[in-house]
Amino acid sequence: SFWSLGCGSVLNEKGEVEMDAIIMDGKNLDSGAVSAVKCIANPIKLARLVMEKTKHMLLTDHGAHLFAQAMGIPATPGENLITERSRERWKKNLEPDSNPEEFQKDLGTVGAVAIDSEGNVACATSTGGLSNKLIGRVGDTACIGSGGYADNRSGATSTTGHGESIMKVVLARLILYHMEQGMSPEMAADTALDYMKTRVGGLGGVIVVNNSGEWAARFSTKQMSWATVKDDQLHYGIYAGERHTRSIDEALTSESEGF
Amino acid sequence: SFWSLGCGSVLNEKGEVEMDAIIMDGKNLDSGAVSAVKCIANPIKLARLVMEKTKHMLLTDHGAHLFAQAMGIPATPGENLITERSRERWKKNLEPDSNPEEFQKDLGTVGAVAIDSEGNVACATSTGGLSNKLIGRVGDTACIGSGGYADNRSGATSTTGHGESIMKVVLARLILYHMEQGMSPEMAADTALDYMKTRVGGLGGVIVVNNSGEWAARFSTKQMSWATVKDDQLHYGIYAGERHTRSIDEALTSESEGF
Repeated sequence: SFWSLGCGSVLNEKGEVEMDAIIMDGKNLDSGAVSAVKCIANPIKLARLVMEKTKHMLLTDHGAHLFAQAMGIPATPGENLITERSRERWKKNLEPDSNPEEFQKDLGTVGAVAIDSEGNVACATSTGGLSNKLIGRVGDTACIGSGGYADNRSGATSTTGHGESIMKVVLARLILYHMEQGMSPEMAADTALDYMKTRVGGLGGVIVVNNSGEWAARFSTKQMSWATVKDDQLHYGIYAGERHTRSIDEALTSESEGF
Repeated sequence: SFWSLGCGSVLNEKGEVEMDAIIMDGKNLDSGAVSAVKCIANPIKLARLVMEKTKHMLLTDHGAHLFAQAMGIPATPGENLITERSRERWKKNLEPDSNPEEFQKDLGTVGAVAIDSEGNVACATSTGGLSNKLIGRVGDTACIGSGGYADNRSGATSTTGHGESIMKVVLARLILYHMEQGMSPEMAADTALDYMKTRVGGLGGVIVVNNSGEWAARFSTKQMSWATVKDDQLHYGIYAGERHTRSIDEALTSESEGF
């Protein structure tokens, strides 16, 4: 489910969950991130603690775990974060005739952008990265400007897709540059995603909000699950052009029926 | 000396050398980086292997060491990378009445930008980061767009200074945006450094080259050692406004006398 971020992540070449996460506050450009963390159920919470409790922006691997320990966050046994589905995909990618790139559908990334009534924006992103990645591979999500960026002067964005392509074009910062120059969130997102596709051949998806509260969810991949809440309305979709709308009350009622 | 990058780096809170490095090729925006590596004498060489031998952009800590091993790079005992000077600074910062921020003069970072006769640009940066940093702290140097960026369409830059501030403004990418919009390397560097100072209070220094071969070395810190080679002339300086010029032949002669 949406809330147990670590669980269900894709696995690295060794069959382990290794996650990256970032959070950023658009008011002062402060940010916190962790990379290559295992045995952490909610890496985004750890990223937030890096932002709030240290003078640093990014802690990695062993040092991030020492910090989690110092903050009193219990380690979650790695196998608790592994689902049957992620193990199946991992095994499939190990087969000699497999094409792991086919399976890079980026099912694991969760991104969020938000704006409050005073115009403060923020973003957060959390992911297991690429299936069957090398141990210690860090993707866009831990990298400020690539996996996310938030600035009250323009807006906030969170990205997903092929991490290495996103990093090459520093996608999140690029989107905000376009907005600084007057583009709408939708135009900024499409322009940056088109650039990434033509310049380095990478696909991705982004959610964007500007500092007036206009938003967009855009992707060059085949699909991206997205949802927005604005003025008590829930908007959501998965495929290009798809957009459903319901009232929040209605959505919450049907959600609780699902449990 | 300039060439033994790892040796002499500042130490983390535990008294160890932990380094970040990045390299980027402006032709295809490909890049390689490592973060939080110990026992590696030349992290920039490992970053280059990440770029050339993997599909990834950034490997961290344990995974980076496994990769180094797989590439046949021998581990250097950590204590061989520690100098008397770096240990002195580390000890001083541990004293109860010390102000470690006073000693953050960023003595350890080495950056380079280059352009060839065909207009291809590249950058490389390598650092031990901040003295007495938390274990696993990753700074701007491992983060593409912050510690360096290279794009044949505009130029290349390598940054140094307060890493967390550099990351907040994604300094390297910011400088290239300014150049894309027509600024000279010097103006782009000064504009971006001024922005970093006023927006987040951080100081730094940068070297920049544009795709016509114009270059600048600019800093808001008190000093930054820099040197340029162009048309068989060596230019170099340390303090603001300082600029010496000698012929390469002359410089090489006096250099070899020094050994």
